[in-house]
Amino acid sequence: MTAYGGIAFLTDYGLEDAFVAACHGVLLDLAPSAPVVDVTHLVPPQDVRRGADVLANAAPYLSAMVLVAVVDPGVGGERRPVALEAGDSVLVGPDNGLLLPAADRLGGPRRAVVLDRPDLFLHPVSATFHGRDIFCPVAARVHGGLALDEAGTPVDVGSLHRLPPPVSRWGTGWLEAEIVHVDRFGNVALAAGQDELDRIGSVPGGTVEVSPVGAGPADTGAVGGGVGEPLRATVGHRFTSVPAGEVVVHVDSDRRVAVAVNLGRADDRLGVRAGDVVRVRACGPRG
Amino acid sequence: MTAYGGIAFLTDYGLEDAFVAACHGVLLDLAPSAPVVDVTHLVPPQDVRRGADVLANAAPYLSAMVLVAVVDPGVGGERRPVALEAGDSVLVGPDNGLLLPAADRLGGPRRAVVLDRPDLFLHPVSATFHGRDIFCPVAARVHGGLALDEAGTPVDVGSLHRLPPPVSRWGTGWLEAEIVHVDRFGNVALAAGQDELDRIGSVPGGTVEVSPVGAGPADTGAVGGGVGEPLRATVGHRFTSVPAGEVVVHVDSDRRVAVAVNLGRADDRLGVRAGDVVRVRACGPRG
Amino acid sequence: MTAYGGIAFLTDYGLEDAFVAACHGVLLDLAPSAPVVDVTHLVPPQDVRRGADVLANAAPYLSAMVLVAVVDPGVGGERRPVALEAGDSVLVGPDNGLLLPAADRLGGPRRAVVLDRPDLFLHPVSATFHGRDIFCPVAARVHGGLALDEAGTPVDVGSLHRLPPPVSRWGTGWLEAEIVHVDRFGNVALAAGQDELDRIGSVPGGTVEVSPVGAGPADTGAVGGGVGEPLRATVGHRFTSVPAGEVVVHVDSDRRVAVAVNLGRADDRLGVRAGDVVRVRACGPRG
Repeated sequence: MTAYGGIAFLTDYGLEDAFVAACHGVLLDLAPSAPVVDVTHLVPPQDVRRGADVLANAAPYLSAMVLVAVVDPGVGGERRPVALEAGDSVLVGPDNGLLLPAADRLGGPRRAVVLDRPDLFLHPVSATFHGRDIFCPVAARVHGGLALDEAGTPVDVGSLHRLPPPVSRWGTGWLEAEIVHVDRFGNVALAAGQDELDRIGSVPGGTVEVSPVGAGPADTGAVGGGVGEPLRATVGHRFTSVPAGEVVVHVDSDRRVAVAVNLGRADDRLGVRAGDVVRVRACGPRG
Repeated sequence: MTAYGGIAFLTDYGLEDAFVAACHGVLLDLAPSAPVVDVTHLVPPQDVRRGADVLANAAPYLSAMVLVAVVDPGVGGERRPVALEAGDSVLVGPDNGLLLPAADRLGGPRRAVVLDRPDLFLHPVSATFHGRDIFCPVAARVHGGLALDEAGTPVDVGSLHRLPPPVSRWGTGWLEAEIVHVDRFGNVALAAGQDELDRIGSVPGGTVEVSPVGAGPADTGAVGGGVGEPLRATVGHRFTSVPAGEVVVHVDSDRRVAVAVNLGRADDRLGVRAGDVVRVRACGPRG
Repeated sequence: MTAYGGIAFLTDYGLEDAFVAACHGVLLDLAPSAPVVDVTHLVPPQDVRRGADVLANAAPYLSAMVLVAVVDPGVGGERRPVALEAGDSVLVGPDNGLLLPAADRLGGPRRAVVLDRPDLFLHPVSATFHGRDIFCPVAARVHGGLALDEAGTPVDVGSLHRLPPPVSRWGTGWLEAEIVHVDRFGNVALAAGQDELDRIGSVPGGTVEVSPVGAGPADTGAVGGGVGEPLRATVGHRFTSVPAGEVVVHVDSDRRVAVAVNLGRADDRLGVRAGDVVRVRACGPRG
C-alpha cells in the first residue's frame, strides 16, 4: 500500500534524447502502478532557479505525490542527493536549492535524508546520470512504501542548500521586485504578491507605472533609473480588464504580481527576462 | 462506472511552464484512474483555429473520451465555458470555436451546457487559468460519471460560436482552397477532400498545377494570379508516388487534399503557410 | 495475460500536430491497460540514424516492453513493416535500420516477421501514416498477447536492413570515431567504449588531445589533419573531474567515450555535430 497518488518528474533533460525515457523505464519497472506526471523537461540546461520556480508552481496541484526533480550541474561532485518531506509529499533530487521553494509551498520541509544507500540505486551507478541511477529508483521505492528514514541518513533540514531569495523591496508608493518567471505567453511574474501590491496603495482600476530597473537590486526610490521607459498599466483582475494591446498589472494564478499585455507579450514591451528587476509605482485611481 | 476510456487534453500552454502539470495534477486528483492523452500543448499561443484543427484531426482516434481543450485568448472575459456531447465523447472548453470542428468529425454536437456550477470548480477560481480551475475539474468529473446536464445549464447547440469556414471553391478544372494545416514535415493540407479532387477531373497518375494565390479568397478562374510560380505535381497515393524532390498531390491520412514533396517540404517550395489559399488546376493524364 | 510491462513509442512526428495523439488513441483503444512511455517524438524528420541511436540508448531501461518506433521516410513504398524479438522485448516498425541497434543492445534479434496481416491493421489503411494504421495496432495486439508468429510471416533476421556501422578505428596511441550522438547539453558521444579508450593507453587523470577530423573516415595516423584545433582534455570519470569550462573525456552513462565541458558545451568547443569524426590521441599521465 502506498500513501502517494503518483510520481511527478521535472528535469532539464530535454525531450529529444533518451534521458527521460530511461527514467520512465526505471520508474515503470520499480513502481509499475504509479501514474507519472511530467512537470517539464524543458528547464534550460542547468538553470536551477528556473527549475525550482516551475516545480514550486506545480507542487500545490500535485498533492500527495513523490516529486523527483533533477537539474543538477554538480552531478557526480560534492552536492548531496536528498529526499525530504513537505506536506503530504516527498521531494527527491540534488541538494542544490532546486527542491526547497516547492517544499515551502507545501508547508516547508519537515524531515530530510541524504540518499546514501547504494542498495536502493540502479547499478552500475553512472557518474553523470543520477536521475536514472539514484533519484528515480529512490522515488519509485518511496512511492512503493519505503519510509523516508529508510531511504537514507537523516540530516537537519536547516542544512539544506537554499538559493538566495529574489530581490523584493518597497517604499512609499513603490515596489521593486525580481522577475521570477516569464511564461510562454510573455507574462512577467514578480517576487511579490497581493500584500505588496496593497502596501503601495494600488487599487483595482487604478494606474501604475512599470519600469525595468536592470538586473541587480536598485538602490533609490527615484523613478526611471532603469534601462527602459516606464509603461502605464491598469491594475486589474484579468487580461481582459484592459483593451487589446494594453498593459495590466494583476495577481496571477500563482498569486504573484504579474505584468501582462492583453493579447500581447509583456516581456517584449518591457524588454525584460527572468532575473531582471522591475519597479512598480502607484499613480492613484486616475493616474 | 464511467462510460469513457480516458481524458484527452489539448492546450496552447507550452511545455516549459507549470501549466500543464498543474492541470494533470487536478485531473489525477479528481479522476485517478483515467488515462490522460496529451494531444498537444504546442498550439501557437492563442491560435484558436490551429488548435481546432489539431483537435479535429485527433478526435476520430480518441473514441469515447472526454476531450478538454483550452486555447482561450478571452479567458476571464465574456466567452462562455461549455461542454458538449458529440458521438460517444464529451468536449469541454471555451466557447470560441475551438471545439466544434472536432465535434463535427464525431457526428456533430448533440447537446451543450454552459459551465455555471462553481461547486464543480477548483477554488479560488483564478481569472487567468480556467484550464486548471474550471475545464479540467469539470472534465474529470464528467469522466467520473457526472451527467452532462448536471455539469451546467443547457444551451442551444446552434448558439455555440463557430469559426468562419475556410475558403473552398472550385470551377471547371480548378479548385481553390485554404491551407488548414502545415505539419512538421512541411506537408500542406487543404480545405478539400477526394470529392473536390474528383470534381476537377484529376486522375491518379495525372498532372496538376499548384499555385499559391495569396491569403484571401481568389475571385477569378484565371491561373497564375497568385504570389508564386505554379508547381507541376503528380496526382498520387503516397509520397513515394514521385521521385525524391518531386511534388505529389494526394488525399492525406486525414482525408484532405494535400501537397507534399517526397523527402522534402512542400510549404517551402510553395512559399505558403496555414491560412494562405492554394489553387489546384488539372492538366489531364499527360499534363 | 500479457508478458509485457508496457509500450514504448518513438517517432519523428513532432509534438505540435495530431499524429502522436492519434497513435495514443489507437493504443489506448486496443491496449487500454498498457502504460505507454513516449521515448521521444522529436527525432529530426526522417533521420533514421538518430532515431535508431535514441531508441538504442533507451532500450536497456525499457525492459520487457513492446517498442514501437516510426521514422519512416519510405512509408508507403517498398520497405517492409516488421516486428522482431530481442531480449524480453518486441520491436515494431519499418525495416529501414531503425530497430536493429536497439535489438542489438537487448542481445540481438532472435526472430522477425513481416507485418502482412491486414486484419490486424486499422482501416482504411492510409498510404502515409503507418504509425497509426499498422505499427501501433500491431504493437497493441502484441502487448495484449498476440504471438509474434501470428503477427506476420517469418523472415530471416539476417535479411533485416542494417544501417552502415559508424566509423571506428584506432592505432598506436590514437582512435578515430564517429560522433553518434550530441545531447541537449552539448556532450559528444563517440562510437567507442572503455575498451577502445584503454587500448590507446589513456589513463584516468591523464591527458588526451581531441581533434575534429571532418565528416568522413580519416586515413592517416597523423595528428591535426582535421578541421579544428586540438583540444587538451583530462581523462576523468565525471563532469566535475575538471574545473568549470575545461574539457573531460569520460565513459558516459551509455558506456560510450564522450567529450564534455564541465558547465559548458563540447559540441561548440569542437565545432562538431553527429556524423563528424573525432580523433582522440593519448598524451600520457602528464600530457
